Amino acid sequence: MAANVQDVIMCFGDSITQGGWEPGMQGFGAQLAHRYARKLDVLNRGLSGYNTDWATPAFKQCLATTNDENVPKIRLLTIWFGANDACIWPSPQHVSLSKFVSNLRDWIDLVHSPDSHHYSPDTRIILISPPPVNTYQRREDLQSRDPPKSLDRDFETTKKYAEGVREVAEEKQVGFTDVWTILWEASGKDEQSLSRFLYDGLHLNGEGYKLTFDALMQTIQDKYPELHFDNLPPTFPPWLSYAEG
Amino acid sequence: MAANVQDVIMCFGDSITQGGWEPGMQGFGAQLAHRYARKLDVLNRGLSGYNTDWATPAFKQCLATTNDENVPKIRLLTIWFGANDACIWPSPQHVSLSKFVSNLRDWIDLVHSPDSHHYSPDTRIILISPPPVNTYQRREDLQSRDPPKSLDRDFETTKKYAEGVREVAEEKQVGFTDVWTILWEASGKDEQSLSRFLYDGLHLNGEGYKLTFDALMQTIQDKYPELHFDNLPPTFPPWLSYAEG
Repeated sequence: MAANVQDVIMCFGDSITQGGWEPGMQGFGAQLAHRYARKLDVLNRGLSGYNTDWATPAFKQCLATTNDENVPKIRLLTIWFGANDACIWPSPQHVSLSKFVSNLRDWIDLVHSPDSHHYSPDTRIILISPPPVNTYQRREDLQSRDPPKSLDRDFETTKKYAEGVREVAEEKQVGFTDVWTILWEASGKDEQSLSRFLYDGLHLNGEGYKLTFDALMQTIQDKYPELHFDNLPPTFPPWLSYAEG
Repeated sequence: MAANVQDVIMCFGDSITQGGWEPGMQGFGAQLAHRYARKLDVLNRGLSGYNTDWATPAFKQCLATTNDENVPKIRLLTIWFGANDACIWPSPQHVSLSKFVSNLRDWIDLVHSPDSHHYSPDTRIILISPPPVNTYQRREDLQSRDPPKSLDRDFETTKKYAEGVREVAEEKQVGFTDVWTILWEASGKDEQSLSRFLYDGLHLNGEGYKLTFDALMQTIQDKYPELHFDNLPPTFPPWLSYAEG
């Protein structure tokens, strides 16, 4: 059995989180795991296709209760949803904007409210906004399927969900990495140019993950500098300390 | 705090394990994490520069005792050492071949002996042999440093340590992924051609990690097929079960 030798970064989200370890992608999860090696373990808690309603019971399962012993602390929790919640009704993935925002608030309270069974005041939280949708790419991808599907997301709706994430982050005073705005500005505010960062109009490619990782590290540096990998001691000593006796 | 929702794959080794998540490298660790997403967590327990003597106390710390509760099971443990132990004496990293082999034996006994405080009969173990050294590349790399260093490894010695790993795997009847032989044969048994798989004569590049990952998955398929990612159920249900629910 594995001893609890390192605390963790938990990445909770949808397919854009789950895909963050994909080889050759510079996925943000693999980059975190690389940079935090020998300091914090990075747990992939990405749930492809999930919206925040479906993810709520999973989120509770991923959090230990205050009675549990021998479990690692979550030093950093990234929460990255919205891409599926923003599906257009009657898609089964659709969650209304107000419910989406309310789910995010509830999740933060689960961790930060003293009366929660999952209360963990030292867990730092960063909310991440969903990437902008390139409906040109997305439509083409869906129409190429067998059977073809019609467009399930639109640009303006996802933008509203991204703004909802920002509002919750400000209200709850947690960290915020604004992937929506970063990719939109890097694309020159041109929807079709988002294909530089998205491989199917919805999911990030290597360039998109690279910008995400850099922005996330900037949020950590600005908001929680004690959690920057440069500021954490290694769990086990460097080998030179043995070699030099 | 993080609940124990998934068991783990623990990758214990030296820098070649620690570097297995490097972005753009197709590192075997990142690939395992990607393929086992939503099934098993993959823990990087690579310790750059360590030999098996220095790693012994760290290994014990990484294993829970049989009394610990709420800790995840190690379903698969990869052990990948030898590259540093094989340094030529009087390098401080040198560990004699007989001591190296004895350390590996002791580690397996720590997990598989019923009288061990870390006894875990369900933990499957795979030993991995160190890659062959390309002394042409390695010499050049060391001579380019400031101050320049002289060659610290030779081809034949590392080969003997790789054979030692095989012998322990056979004796203890655990899995064995023979990275030494795989890379040697893929190089046409030509030392200089190993540069296709090593970036500095010692550490794997993306191509080297790709062959390693494929070979490791083949070992899992042959020896412990129940642990192949295709044969493990997901921790949380697929989203379609909600959508159709």
